[in-house]
Amino acid sequence: MLHFTFLGTSSGVPTLSRNVSGLAVRNSKNKDWILVDAGEGTQHRIQQAKLSLQNLVAICITHVHGDHCYGLVGLLASAGMNARSKPLIVIAPKEIQQWFEITAQLTDLHLPYSLQFIDVNDAIQPQQITDEFIVQAHPLSHRVPSFAFSIYIKSIQKKLDIQALTQLGVPQGDMWGHLKRGYNIEFEGQTLKAQDFIKIQNQQVHAIIGGDNDQPELLADACKDAQLLIHESTYLQTVLDKIGKGPMHSSAKMVAEFAEQQSLGNLILTHFSPRHQDKSGQQAISEEVRQFYKGHFYLANDFDEFTLNETGQLLKIE
Amino acid sequence: MLHFTFLGTSSGVPTLSRNVSGLAVRNSKNKDWILVDAGEGTQHRIQQAKLSLQNLVAICITHVHGDHCYGLVGLLASAGMNARSKPLIVIAPKEIQQWFEITAQLTDLHLPYSLQFIDVNDAIQPQQITDEFIVQAHPLSHRVPSFAFSIYIKSIQKKLDIQALTQLGVPQGDMWGHLKRGYNIEFEGQTLKAQDFIKIQNQQVHAIIGGDNDQPELLADACKDAQLLIHESTYLQTVLDKIGKGPMHSSAKMVAEFAEQQSLGNLILTHFSPRHQDKSGQQAISEEVRQFYKGHFYLANDFDEFTLNETGQLLKIE
Repeated sequence: MLHFTFLGTSSGVPTLSRNVSGLAVRNSKNKDWILVDAGEGTQHRIQQAKLSLQNLVAICITHVHGDHCYGLVGLLASAGMNARSKPLIVIAPKEIQQWFEITAQLTDLHLPYSLQFIDVNDAIQPQQITDEFIVQAHPLSHRVPSFAFSIYIKSIQKKLDIQALTQLGVPQGDMWGHLKRGYNIEFEGQTLKAQDFIKIQNQQVHAIIGGDNDQPELLADACKDAQLLIHESTYLQTVLDKIGKGPMHSSAKMVAEFAEQQSLGNLILTHFSPRHQDKSGQQAISEEVRQFYKGHFYLANDFDEFTLNETGQLLKIE
Repeated sequence: MLHFTFLGTSSGVPTLSRNVSGLAVRNSKNKDWILVDAGEGTQHRIQQAKLSLQNLVAICITHVHGDHCYGLVGLLASAGMNARSKPLIVIAPKEIQQWFEITAQLTDLHLPYSLQFIDVNDAIQPQQITDEFIVQAHPLSHRVPSFAFSIYIKSIQKKLDIQALTQLGVPQGDMWGHLKRGYNIEFEGQTLKAQDFIKIQNQQVHAIIGGDNDQPELLADACKDAQLLIHESTYLQTVLDKIGKGPMHSSAKMVAEFAEQQSLGNLILTHFSPRHQDKSGQQAISEEVRQFYKGHFYLANDFDEFTLNETGQLLKIE
């Protein structure tokens, strides 16, 4: 199961209720987590959300704009001051690595752990981050190179073939338990072999987290087996029409139409322009999504938490 | 009168109640203000304190360590996104200018206003920032070059010579008002000339805001006409003795002893190690100061506000 904590949902500038971009993706099996984007103040949000920088296994930066990366170096410095020693993976445009290195040099920063930078262009091939986590980048369309990240957890589950056991009349209880643990059993004079009654299922949970992007359709292939898309929805369509295509962002309508075409099960929208952050603004975004998308969707607020399980069920933690 | 708002009072890392360094110094005559240091998240604190980036006239950075400067570029970017067009002065070590320029280039940042960088080494000569504000830098002792900033406001005040008017028997009221406005008056058959009854007084308010520093005595000359010193007090003396001199910070005792030697009227301590931020830690710092300093002092918390007037009176705004 994947667990999401939104650390920042404002576009461009922080506001009193929303920080700039940051999203924590945790594997609910253990404490490992991945950070997608690190706008300024992300480390403060991490503290407030009671996440530990010690358990962070990777940082993925979608693109070089400041509201997605200016919190990176402060966060790395604080992890160092809190005595982190484990290496950390950073998947990012290569300018981010240059920026980190020059910043460290100019500001006398010496981390007590190593960073393993992976150029986001290389992460278009899936990257195994931990035993459970796999990350893969997908190119998007923005004023600078921008990427979405697929985050997968894959697991193997053993399930008893309940249908077969029921047909044979094997009673539930100890016998089923023995089989499930891999032991053969004797039943009505026959030896029932565990391997014949255990089905191995490969399971995966797959969420896609987009960076800034004005062409959601670029994610069509990636979305084929995704259970959740988290995507920017900076403007209402009417506002985008007025501003024009210059900023290269998506409207709620654009993302909703794409999600509907893909028959996507779950959608979370984020990265709202400050003009759409009050109650009526959020309501208008919500109505625009509902008009074009029949699936299950949320508009994210800072500190909102969600879980996504193997069956593709997205739940908001209240 | 100078008006101070503490935006961050934690050393090294932000904590749940304190951000890293930032201090707003306002001239209470108008809305102009100067920012001293810009740790990560300073722009968030500025928003919360209802200060406007439009009225910011200068940023002074004491040294290159991240907890004093990592918020600089995000803050400049946000001022740009909020359509600032007025030029802005930045007095800082020259590495900060290099860092800004490289960061802007690598992160596609284009400010719609100009920055006038002044190398902090040149600001050892007083710099006239606005008609009222003068800033002057003083070298300190730290692991990297670090500076304190004197902030002065100078003003001319016209005062009536009340003693002379009383001796002559001139009644208070319109006559005094005419003289004060610069008009001669007729009194008991005599012409009293305004210029003879107006005393011109040059007034100044002078506060010194230190960066990280393990030798408060370096500020002895600068403190001669200062009404307030704001200085780091990272540790208790016992803790500093245990840690050793490596980090090159001051203890409460070191600053208190220095302030006492200088007969300084007012002292505000800040930049506390997270280990001294709880109630008992702050009490211990307070007791250590009181033991060595007989003047008027405060330990700063985030969002604390103070005024310092022409007579050297420091008041905490409750």
